[in-house]
Amino acid sequence: MILINVGDELLIGQVINTNAAFIGQQMAAAGIEMSEVLTIGDDAEAIRQAIITSFEKTDFIIMTGGLGPTKDDITKKVVCGFFNKALVMDEDTLRAVTERFAARGMTLTETNRQQAAVPEGCEVLPNSLGTAPGLWIEQDQKVLVMLPGVPFEMEKLIVDTVLPKMYARRNDTHSIQFRVLQCTNVTESGLSDLLEDYERQLPEGLALAYLPKPGIIRLRLSGKGENGPLLTQTLDTQFQKLKDMVGEYAFTDEDIPMEEVVGRLLKKSRKTLATAESCTGGYIAHLITSVPGSSLYFKGSVVSYSNEVKREVLNVREDNLRKRGAVSEEVVSDMALNVMSLLDVDYAIATSGIAGPAGGTDEKPVGTVWIAVATPVRLTTQKFQFGNRMGRRQIIERASMAALNMLRIEIEKYKR
Amino acid sequence: MILINVGDELLIGQVINTNAAFIGQQMAAAGIEMSEVLTIGDDAEAIRQAIITSFEKTDFIIMTGGLGPTKDDITKKVVCGFFNKALVMDEDTLRAVTERFAARGMTLTETNRQQAAVPEGCEVLPNSLGTAPGLWIEQDQKVLVMLPGVPFEMEKLIVDTVLPKMYARRNDTHSIQFRVLQCTNVTESGLSDLLEDYERQLPEGLALAYLPKPGIIRLRLSGKGENGPLLTQTLDTQFQKLKDMVGEYAFTDEDIPMEEVVGRLLKKSRKTLATAESCTGGYIAHLITSVPGSSLYFKGSVVSYSNEVKREVLNVREDNLRKRGAVSEEVVSDMALNVMSLLDVDYAIATSGIAGPAGGTDEKPVGTVWIAVATPVRLTTQKFQFGNRMGRRQIIERASMAALNMLRIEIEKYKR
Repeated sequence: MILINVGDELLIGQVINTNAAFIGQQMAAAGIEMSEVLTIGDDAEAIRQAIITSFEKTDFIIMTGGLGPTKDDITKKVVCGFFNKALVMDEDTLRAVTERFAARGMTLTETNRQQAAVPEGCEVLPNSLGTAPGLWIEQDQKVLVMLPGVPFEMEKLIVDTVLPKMYARRNDTHSIQFRVLQCTNVTESGLSDLLEDYERQLPEGLALAYLPKPGIIRLRLSGKGENGPLLTQTLDTQFQKLKDMVGEYAFTDEDIPMEEVVGRLLKKSRKTLATAESCTGGYIAHLITSVPGSSLYFKGSVVSYSNEVKREVLNVREDNLRKRGAVSEEVVSDMALNVMSLLDVDYAIATSGIAGPAGGTDEKPVGTVWIAVATPVRLTTQKFQFGNRMGRRQIIERASMAALNMLRIEIEKYKR
Repeated sequence: MILINVGDELLIGQVINTNAAFIGQQMAAAGIEMSEVLTIGDDAEAIRQAIITSFEKTDFIIMTGGLGPTKDDITKKVVCGFFNKALVMDEDTLRAVTERFAARGMTLTETNRQQAAVPEGCEVLPNSLGTAPGLWIEQDQKVLVMLPGVPFEMEKLIVDTVLPKMYARRNDTHSIQFRVLQCTNVTESGLSDLLEDYERQLPEGLALAYLPKPGIIRLRLSGKGENGPLLTQTLDTQFQKLKDMVGEYAFTDEDIPMEEVVGRLLKKSRKTLATAESCTGGYIAHLITSVPGSSLYFKGSVVSYSNEVKREVLNVREDNLRKRGAVSEEVVSDMALNVMSLLDVDYAIATSGIAGPAGGTDEKPVGTVWIAVATPVRLTTQKFQFGNRMGRRQIIERASMAALNMLRIEIEKYKR
């Protein structure tokens, strides 16, 4: 299949195209190959050309965008032109939209009414979260699915409606499968040298990809084959080999974020966590609380951005602040131990560093971060130097990842 | 120009294509039209086809990806094939890469050595942040720029090297300009009805786009014309009209995030802020501290995820917790006022709500959020119902945006 994303906002970069990533993930998980993503503007001729050239390469197109209440009907009109169909009012959709507005005490505008106009003979895919329905147009073995560009509306339509219909329709016996191993504390080229021989011995149809994120390298072992069960077996064998080679660098063999890995460990051991954050400014707390159910193990955080809060709320010793500075082993140690007793938890993380762009010195340049992790049995500290070429956001992300990984290692040690 | 992004990781959605957004922003700001973004896999034939079809539509291609140490030289080889050039070792690049590794006490592997191989006669664009340089290949009025896919390396190359070279090269007199007005507390269709007549009267060449983000609608007024100064004048006039129409819904006429708008207000009035966060879990503190220089006005936060922390650290009255529940006007009021005195600040934000997916009741369904803002002159509270159809992340984002906007309104009121 080919994905076409319509929207000027994507081309001028005012919106990041997360829709393409979501649809790519869903297709990959379903074993359907997305061979191309084409992003174009809200322009009739560009849309027409995109449909024509894409149908030369595939018989299945998913198109997002161009269906909102404020967009012109450009997209629908072009599609009608391509398939040689008329644009007609869909009564069911009109009723649904009218009811939606009535329930909120609003009356339907002409703009909203137009959202119920659809190409004749197409299948309307009801959109319970918005006013623009999805449309499935099929003719001469060619399918064009039009979806709204609003992420959560599109996502629900893909999962609940489009994928089931795609499954029902396809008779492709090809299987695409993959496994993910996530590593940290290692560079991409370091891993690549370690895995040189491993990659060379991979059977045909299997490939290893390196996907770097801030502080993390995801290794994706993928395979494509006619025989699904055989492919599963081959992948399992090679994935185990990969895990043996990578060893301690790997922190999970699931495609879940670090904060979920840590969350599961805490949940399983029925332990609690708190954070005392300076340079990470609450980002670690945010990551942890992004995981559903985190209230079971996360009690809270003290974001001590000023020295005053470090002193007054976290009881960091004045002496340490004055003699060692806020970015020091002594201060993060105080922060970790004191937030541990203040919030009465089993584990505590503390961070203090210079996220920049200002505030760096020769002795402590931008990117210097001290991290402490307090556990029921010990206190461990580590100094990181993330490099002053990184941006503020990146330093915050890297420091948060490093802190969560330090905690993960401590919990796993403590378990033994 | 056309952008081609190469990478399987983009097609299976393991990486969100932020590069396209960054390059789109840069081109738009420079008045260069990016007409299309094409995302393809690490596949020689797909890359070859993409180059051929794109050069039918444009004479300028920027290509990202396919240059990392672990990727094959697929991309470089295909490009050499297209331009009919040989792949040769670039001695300067090889020296730079060798020195980079030596400085870290590492020796160069063959994989790394290959990163210094470039198409003959191309211009090498040095990459101070990584091992793969950018490449500028120009032949018969056609330009292909190859850049590494790692965001911060690509970004620096675009800004420091590619854009200046593009400026120097172009003789297009077309000007593209835009203005952004950001609105909140209003729906897209609400705005669209309000602006129906306004949109109709817009002069030719001007267009208004609606760009929704969680809790925010960005209105982009864009124009294209031959006469730059005249276009600026027309845009200014129409933008002022737009601001008058939108009125109180607008929170800034700059393209900066809400947290920066609030940060500037605090900085200007020399006031300080703290947050007491339950359901937002530190996200508001994170947003605020993402802005460089925020330590001037942000003192810190107490993320009170458990009731125990609300009681023990924030002194929320036991009576309120028991009788009204953690998600109540009484509790957020206690949180805001007490964090204000605990952290000794001028303004305080407090949030408590049900981010889901679990924890909702008939009386307080998922998406219910109470927000309090304490100022030097008063305490204001508001209950939000974000709808149980939204996901956890979205509820956290919406609640954070609503809280920052409440604070913004209070600061602006207090100024008068």
